[in-house]
Amino acid sequence: KRTQADSAGQRMDIRGIYPPIATPFTEKEDVDYQKLNDNLQKYAKIPFRGLVVQGSNGEYPYLMAEERVEVVRRVRQALPRDKLVIAGSGCESTMATVQMSEQMAQAGADAVLVVTPCFYRGRMDSRALIHHYTKVADSSPVPVVLYSVPANTGLDLPVDAVVTLSQHPNIVGIKDSGGDITRIALIIHKTSSEDFQVLAGSAGFLLAAYSVGAVGGVCALANVLGQQVCQLEELCLTGQWEAAKALQYRLIEPNIAVTRKFGVAALKQAMEWFGYHGGSCRFPLQPLSEADVRVLRQDFSSNGWL
Amino acid sequence: KRTQADSAGQRMDIRGIYPPIATPFTEKEDVDYQKLNDNLQKYAKIPFRGLVVQGSNGEYPYLMAEERVEVVRRVRQALPRDKLVIAGSGCESTMATVQMSEQMAQAGADAVLVVTPCFYRGRMDSRALIHHYTKVADSSPVPVVLYSVPANTGLDLPVDAVVTLSQHPNIVGIKDSGGDITRIALIIHKTSSEDFQVLAGSAGFLLAAYSVGAVGGVCALANVLGQQVCQLEELCLTGQWEAAKALQYRLIEPNIAVTRKFGVAALKQAMEWFGYHGGSCRFPLQPLSEADVRVLRQDFSSNGWL
Amino acid sequence: KRTQADSAGQRMDIRGIYPPIATPFTEKEDVDYQKLNDNLQKYAKIPFRGLVVQGSNGEYPYLMAEERVEVVRRVRQALPRDKLVIAGSGCESTMATVQMSEQMAQAGADAVLVVTPCFYRGRMDSRALIHHYTKVADSSPVPVVLYSVPANTGLDLPVDAVVTLSQHPNIVGIKDSGGDITRIALIIHKTSSEDFQVLAGSAGFLLAAYSVGAVGGVCALANVLGQQVCQLEELCLTGQWEAAKALQYRLIEPNIAVTRKFGVAALKQAMEWFGYHGGSCRFPLQPLSEADVRVLRQDFSSNGWL
Amino acid sequence: KRTQADSAGQRMDIRGIYPPIATPFTEKEDVDYQKLNDNLQKYAKIPFRGLVVQGSNGEYPYLMAEERVEVVRRVRQALPRDKLVIAGSGCESTMATVQMSEQMAQAGADAVLVVTPCFYRGRMDSRALIHHYTKVADSSPVPVVLYSVPANTGLDLPVDAVVTLSQHPNIVGIKDSGGDITRIALIIHKTSSEDFQVLAGSAGFLLAAYSVGAVGGVCALANVLGQQVCQLEELCLTGQWEAAKALQYRLIEPNIAVTRKFGVAALKQAMEWFGYHGGSCRFPLQPLSEADVRVLRQDFSSNGWL
Repeated sequence: KRTQADSAGQRMDIRGIYPPIATPFTEKEDVDYQKLNDNLQKYAKIPFRGLVVQGSNGEYPYLMAEERVEVVRRVRQALPRDKLVIAGSGCESTMATVQMSEQMAQAGADAVLVVTPCFYRGRMDSRALIHHYTKVADSSPVPVVLYSVPANTGLDLPVDAVVTLSQHPNIVGIKDSGGDITRIALIIHKTSSEDFQVLAGSAGFLLAAYSVGAVGGVCALANVLGQQVCQLEELCLTGQWEAAKALQYRLIEPNIAVTRKFGVAALKQAMEWFGYHGGSCRFPLQPLSEADVRVLRQDFSSNGWL
Repeated sequence: KRTQADSAGQRMDIRGIYPPIATPFTEKEDVDYQKLNDNLQKYAKIPFRGLVVQGSNGEYPYLMAEERVEVVRRVRQALPRDKLVIAGSGCESTMATVQMSEQMAQAGADAVLVVTPCFYRGRMDSRALIHHYTKVADSSPVPVVLYSVPANTGLDLPVDAVVTLSQHPNIVGIKDSGGDITRIALIIHKTSSEDFQVLAGSAGFLLAAYSVGAVGGVCALANVLGQQVCQLEELCLTGQWEAAKALQYRLIEPNIAVTRKFGVAALKQAMEWFGYHGGSCRFPLQPLSEADVRVLRQDFSSNGWL
Repeated sequence: KRTQADSAGQRMDIRGIYPPIATPFTEKEDVDYQKLNDNLQKYAKIPFRGLVVQGSNGEYPYLMAEERVEVVRRVRQALPRDKLVIAGSGCESTMATVQMSEQMAQAGADAVLVVTPCFYRGRMDSRALIHHYTKVADSSPVPVVLYSVPANTGLDLPVDAVVTLSQHPNIVGIKDSGGDITRIALIIHKTSSEDFQVLAGSAGFLLAAYSVGAVGGVCALANVLGQQVCQLEELCLTGQWEAAKALQYRLIEPNIAVTRKFGVAALKQAMEWFGYHGGSCRFPLQPLSEADVRVLRQDFSSNGWL
Repeated sequence: KRTQADSAGQRMDIRGIYPPIATPFTEKEDVDYQKLNDNLQKYAKIPFRGLVVQGSNGEYPYLMAEERVEVVRRVRQALPRDKLVIAGSGCESTMATVQMSEQMAQAGADAVLVVTPCFYRGRMDSRALIHHYTKVADSSPVPVVLYSVPANTGLDLPVDAVVTLSQHPNIVGIKDSGGDITRIALIIHKTSSEDFQVLAGSAGFLLAAYSVGAVGGVCALANVLGQQVCQLEELCLTGQWEAAKALQYRLIEPNIAVTRKFGVAALKQAMEWFGYHGGSCRFPLQPLSEADVRVLRQDFSSNGWL
């Protein structure tokens, strides 16, 4: 049985690169576990630290509760034991998040990634969010990773809340997808007395995040250009900043294309080009128009990837 | 069996005032059906057109799918047959919304209220939203009411999408909570050839909405001051605009207090003062601080309600 | 010499409809006073209460300080004495606004319209804005009208500041262009003990504003459809709400077109169609594309105006 | 006479650190040239590349046109010849900006910094902004630096506009104050074929900006901790990233305090603590409350600067 901290009292080490994997669907919009498995076989050969399952790119808000858990179970079964599985267990209510975190742990997740609740965003102040995460972390059988993704939630987990939560023994870090590098540096600075790990939430600012002390990244683009994102990590970790910069430059436009410009449908389209199963999203997410596909392709080819 | 339109081809008439009812919980955060029932007995005596169940004030994002349906079933059983039950059936995916709408109809809902999906708000353009609502309306056994609530979703259902959707025989109207009166008037103007009904989503702009052609309101404040909101409707419908204005003025600050200033916790607190069961919210929604309660009370008392 | 309040202590009556006039330019981008004069002759025949000179539609941020004053002087000279001239005198600093208000009064303005300073919008809280307007009103030789236009300034003059400022003897009202009808009604309610007058800042919500107690409007569209906007006022004042509604509907799309959809360039284009001198804007405002002109025309013609 | 590019066709080299200097005022709100001069004597001893005069922190929107020019003239006279003077010459209209740029050059500015016009922000698309900057750069006697500061203007100069403008021979770079590090890296990547220089607009993300290829910074905090900001530059340029990181961390909170948290009044207060003349702002900017001063002090002392 995993404990919240090992015998030396140290928190789980989550450093490294993770693709937040996409969920392939059949034509009837069911989860396509066969295609998922094919993708996992390929990901297993890339020096990822692990996978994030049920992040925003996994269309988790479109999956039923049972589907969310089942996908995590299948991923854990298919993935080599040394790869971490971080499972998105965030729900709107504290009660449901507690329960989902437990189920994710039972399904084999090594840690859970908990997005900020956001429907009542006007009331989600530090007090509410600290209460939420504390309750979840208190009861979760596995470590908790905070998750701030304002583009989807319209809400930034406040820095003071992060600092308070960093002191909880079962909260090991944060995935910050907002891209505000000053904020990221400040979080690292203010939590430096804790064993608290910050992961960049996107490949677009991965180098910059490393430069200010981040220890890894959860990057949508790693679903497509996994080797390259891991190479960028390696260049940063070994201080090869000039080479890192040159590589970072070439990743920005493809990254924007598969995230805020065109979203998950573009990520899945690009996956097809690079040998993975992408396919369609669940509705209401729409397939890309032909014009959008052309622009997407251009964003990869103009940077030398296609 | 209800059909989508009656034999004369007319759409369901949804004119009137509806409280979007709150969901009382026990101390263990379970739904308290006894307290719910008590509230329903009181609401039955107010000249509401019906109730909205599982609107934003019902904390629907915090209820499990089964709870959402069960609450609707109980409300339908307790409520006199001549009162409409409009049930919130919106989910993030089209698939889940279709399924939930069916379940709500089976549980006795007279119509379903479908909020805009919003997690991938950057991709929720008119194309996606028209597709979503069309699929839901095509399959729903009961009429569909559109629901735009940008304060919670960060997304306004675009006017052109509303106009297109107004032509669907199973879409009967919209609850618009954004409060942009120009937009509301434009929607009414552009859908005038259809039998499309616009409900104001708040008591704060109810008079103004009537003045430009709205036919009713779904008003959080009606949970507390139900008679008064119905009286405002009556004054507007009978052209007593001066009296309407005087009453409208006195409702604005209490309304702001129980909505955007303090949210659902304040609504439930105020319900207690006016003889209803309110109680706590599910977490992460927090109870009001004592200072907030004082301000809330002042917002009612300074307008002569307490 | 005008005094701040007449002998009976009453504030200046500013009720009625005002076009915020556009500034015609020559090909060399100089103010074209001849064309301005031609427009004024036509406006004099419309039952406007007066004109607003140097509102947002007058491109006042693009005029030199001397030009701003000179345009007001020319308008005052050309306009019949019974028409009010309300001159925009807002600058970023309190000092400059005080000075400009004095110059506007000397140039013949009957009142000054003072926009919220906004460059340091993060610091423009109620304290700063109350201080600013109080200093300006203390020294202005003519009455002051507050002006909140968040689409341009990114800033809403807070309701509590408006309420405080309404007690100043030399502040007679507000032009509110935000279109938040709940806010407008609340301002009227909270200032009801004062002789404080609220003008709608746009023709799009003029009927709704009258329905909650506004006493007039400063409407860009009145530059083009002046008679019609005055007719809408008349219908509201005489309680002909059904006819008012029908007319209001037809004004919304043309109004959106000449304001937030296409801006001042569209207002000037539409003026040409209706017999006024419009012409080009100062740069960097661009002329409309041909495609935009077609859409603009359609927004007028589909509502029966062209 | 300076030419737009030297004989070798190279653009002016603007690499390095610049404080955007504050403007001291007398008790009567006049510019205090004596105090300004005292500050300049101290800044001359710090290894700045030069000074930015009439940036946002110089309260330029509160200065009359003549004051803006006069301050630049005095700074140029007082400053050693080897220090660059970059003068803010941005106005709302293209015409006024052209004229002001000329006046700034005559007053001795080595380059002009041109903020995006923003009052009609809804119309300030790439087409308008490219037109504006091209006209200004065509006529300016000295090189032009673009300036994007969305916190004040509510507007980000679009990347595609920056890329187009980078090809103009008289546009040498951009000051980007938005802090979006992905955008900054993308601008550097997309303008790499040009001799185009990117300056970070704040000390909060200076290290990160260097890590992706920026060549300097215009940093409000350099008015207070000038030596330290220059030291951070030096550490970045010599690849001492660990030491740079440690220093960067300690600058973030003081920087936030003198910019978005408390603004120019805080910058001037902190200047007093570090031996410079700060003093009051012009109104409507308010002095800090005592409580704010305590928080401000804490933001410096908790990072070891006081």
